[in-house]
Amino acid sequence: MDQAEDPIAQLEAYDGELPIVATNRNQWFGGKARDTGRLDTLFAASRFDAVTYVDIELETARAKEWILEEFRDNDVGLIISHHDFDSTPDKEVLTAIIDQCAGYGDVAKVAVYPEDLSDTLTLLTALHEATQAGIDAAGIAMGETGSHTRVVGHIYGSKLGYAPLLDDDSEYAPGQIPLGKLRALVESTRIDGTQLERIEAIEGDVSVPSELTLPN
Amino acid sequence: MDQAEDPIAQLEAYDGELPIVATNRNQWFGGKARDTGRLDTLFAASRFDAVTYVDIELETARAKEWILEEFRDNDVGLIISHHDFDSTPDKEVLTAIIDQCAGYGDVAKVAVYPEDLSDTLTLLTALHEATQAGIDAAGIAMGETGSHTRVVGHIYGSKLGYAPLLDDDSEYAPGQIPLGKLRALVESTRIDGTQLERIEAIEGDVSVPSELTLPN
Repeated sequence: MDQAEDPIAQLEAYDGELPIVATNRNQWFGGKARDTGRLDTLFAASRFDAVTYVDIELETARAKEWILEEFRDNDVGLIISHHDFDSTPDKEVLTAIIDQCAGYGDVAKVAVYPEDLSDTLTLLTALHEATQAGIDAAGIAMGETGSHTRVVGHIYGSKLGYAPLLDDDSEYAPGQIPLGKLRALVESTRIDGTQLERIEAIEGDVSVPSELTLPN
Repeated sequence: MDQAEDPIAQLEAYDGELPIVATNRNQWFGGKARDTGRLDTLFAASRFDAVTYVDIELETARAKEWILEEFRDNDVGLIISHHDFDSTPDKEVLTAIIDQCAGYGDVAKVAVYPEDLSDTLTLLTALHEATQAGIDAAGIAMGETGSHTRVVGHIYGSKLGYAPLLDDDSEYAPGQIPLGKLRALVESTRIDGTQLERIEAIEGDVSVPSELTLPN
């Protein structure tokens, strides 16, 4: 929402079939939202039927735990996320972060920056162990080094994939894989029994619904 | 060679451009060759210019180390391989196996059977660490659980990919990915700087050269 011109009006205009994960980040978490009113706007978004999940930062959940119940009252699921844009925590620390995220919400999401390939293995290992422990976890290693974790994360239990819809690949962050390609790669590597709830609902090319277009 | 009707005659007839890795397995290693003459036949194959590597089992290299020099005199590289069809060794053991393979040959190859996804992570970790240590390693986890290691192994340093050429996918072993698809998946996940020496030489659909066709 922090990237959109008028997110609430755009949600009002949205009549697409795909459910929406709403997020509203401030600068600390890589976004553009001012702190004032940030969570109120996210809360307003969570009232829309199309918004089925909100993504709230672990730090926000920790500091303002009382708001989580209010979001739940609006019938949205909670993705509790932690981002590390500079490095990858040790596996024990990453596991503790995932546990904490899971303690606050329905899905524990981590995005880390790998300094080398041992960090991508740490991310995959932590995802696998959290999944084994019964946690709905999701995670990626950012950047080009981590790009393949977007492809194989589902094998290790990751419950969410992230892919840009834009056709212009100069708009992608390093390591991001556009939706059509990511879908093909995930389908090519899936193990029988992997449930892909939404990916199968997305047929053909997907473009950003005009109501949700972001400004350039 | 153990699967072919008359491998030496077939090599004589071969005039393709792609180099050949020759192997001749006995039952212990998943093949059909009788022990008598097995290594002599492999040795005869190694005299052909088209044969640039032979794959010899670690157990064979250990027991008959003297033959390795004879193969080298025929100007072929040595892939020293270890297969575990039932399980995956602990990482320390797998690392020791890779080190031993590397001590005997040019490429250390391991194929393991993963009982769960932690075993696929063990394989990838061992490949990565061997690569970091300067070893030319190659490896896969077999079966469906390990199938994605065939796709992302190159990221962790694996120097060889294995893919069936047959069009009939009922002929594939579990987890095997046909060549055209594997090529696309590897190219889609490669990190800038990854060298793909041969994959780029293989354009379009590749079929088994008729000289090398195996009996049904």
